[in-house]
Amino acid sequence: MKHVAVILSGCGVYDGAEIHESVLTLLHLEQQHATYQCFAPDTMQHHVINHVTGEASNEQRNVLIEAARIARGQIKPLSALQVDDFDAVILPGGFGAAKNLSDFAFAGAKAEVLPELKQHLSRFIAAKKPLGFICIAPAMIPRLFDSRVSLTIGMDQDTADHITTMGGQHINCRVQDIVVDHAAKVVSTPAYMLAQSVLEASSGIEKLVHAVLELAEAKTASHHGASPSPSGSL
Amino acid sequence: MKHVAVILSGCGVYDGAEIHESVLTLLHLEQQHATYQCFAPDTMQHHVINHVTGEASNEQRNVLIEAARIARGQIKPLSALQVDDFDAVILPGGFGAAKNLSDFAFAGAKAEVLPELKQHLSRFIAAKKPLGFICIAPAMIPRLFDSRVSLTIGMDQDTADHITTMGGQHINCRVQDIVVDHAAKVVSTPAYMLAQSVLEASSGIEKLVHAVLELAEAKTASHHGASPSPSGSL
Repeated sequence: MKHVAVILSGCGVYDGAEIHESVLTLLHLEQQHATYQCFAPDTMQHHVINHVTGEASNEQRNVLIEAARIARGQIKPLSALQVDDFDAVILPGGFGAAKNLSDFAFAGAKAEVLPELKQHLSRFIAAKKPLGFICIAPAMIPRLFDSRVSLTIGMDQDTADHITTMGGQHINCRVQDIVVDHAAKVVSTPAYMLAQSVLEASSGIEKLVHAVLELAEAKTASHHGASPSPSGSL
Repeated sequence: MKHVAVILSGCGVYDGAEIHESVLTLLHLEQQHATYQCFAPDTMQHHVINHVTGEASNEQRNVLIEAARIARGQIKPLSALQVDDFDAVILPGGFGAAKNLSDFAFAGAKAEVLPELKQHLSRFIAAKKPLGFICIAPAMIPRLFDSRVSLTIGMDQDTADHITTMGGQHINCRVQDIVVDHAAKVVSTPAYMLAQSVLEASSGIEKLVHAVLELAEAKTASHHGASPSPSGSL
């Protein structure tokens, strides 16, 4: 059974983790017989958006405390993430990925990833464990790899151009599909960059979870295959 | 195609609508080819709970504005609900149902339903349209009917005793099952009163949505059946 770290960025599409994408990630992990632990950085949100009006409010909220709403309290600070304990990592989208986990929403092609997060994701990459990115979260990928990794944020040309400038290989993708970079072990899907319904977001996320778990399985299998065989002839 | 009103009570299990139950309700409505509109009362939450520590904070939040996070902004105030526009209504759970939509969490058997909500739900009942209640939301049912309606909040004896005192007929129910009162057209399921996983909550909510839509269908069918037949003999 695979154990997956899910990294949330708050609670709500406009200033945090997209709620549907986050819940669907957990649902599909369970449906595909994986277990998970949610994490979020113990930092303040970039801002708080009133989700009725779309306007910024004067409130201040903490990313971890808000993300705990999605995780029903079962969440740990990102600082507690031990990469050795997990087979893969998945990052749902929402503006939190581009405002709290990175500054892509403001800096575009000059965006940087939250150093604490970059450190953890780099360890997953070094350990050759797969990474899944949903919605706008894939915009972080070029900052994590030296090589040109294939990824998608759907069809938005401006966003795709920023990603190309950053060094990524953007591939247009329908909402129900995924893009897999097998060498980098990176999977991405557009979800609410394109989705018009929960069902559309669910279809792509289901495939993303499947591909991430399959890449995690391949790692285990090839690792086992490379181990000395006790029955082999010398 | 059936159109269903979904009434949310905030955003987060401890002080608002249970997020997984809310998203799963929308997902299963879509999967079963229904459309929906989310509503929430434009009132202040009873309180705000830090979902990491479980403790009350000094913040004040509005039920409608927080519920908008689950609905991705596509939400209307409860005051705008026109019962004629809908075939059924579903209320996800979370403590919001017992703290913001009613005071069951504090008053127990003496609980009252938010007058504005009671008025709307009474109109659904008068129009013989089905009602679905998830998790702790069914505790409101006895306050809506003069008759003894069958319902479930799972297996919790204390909660069941309060409901019996209020005039409800509590029936113990497993997490993946539902209780249907055909005469009252009321469906309930325990969800996170018992669920240990998103998948468990999903299984009961899927059945609840199916039963609610079936009751709505039966209403339409019997209504058509009762209408004068142009080909009938006189």
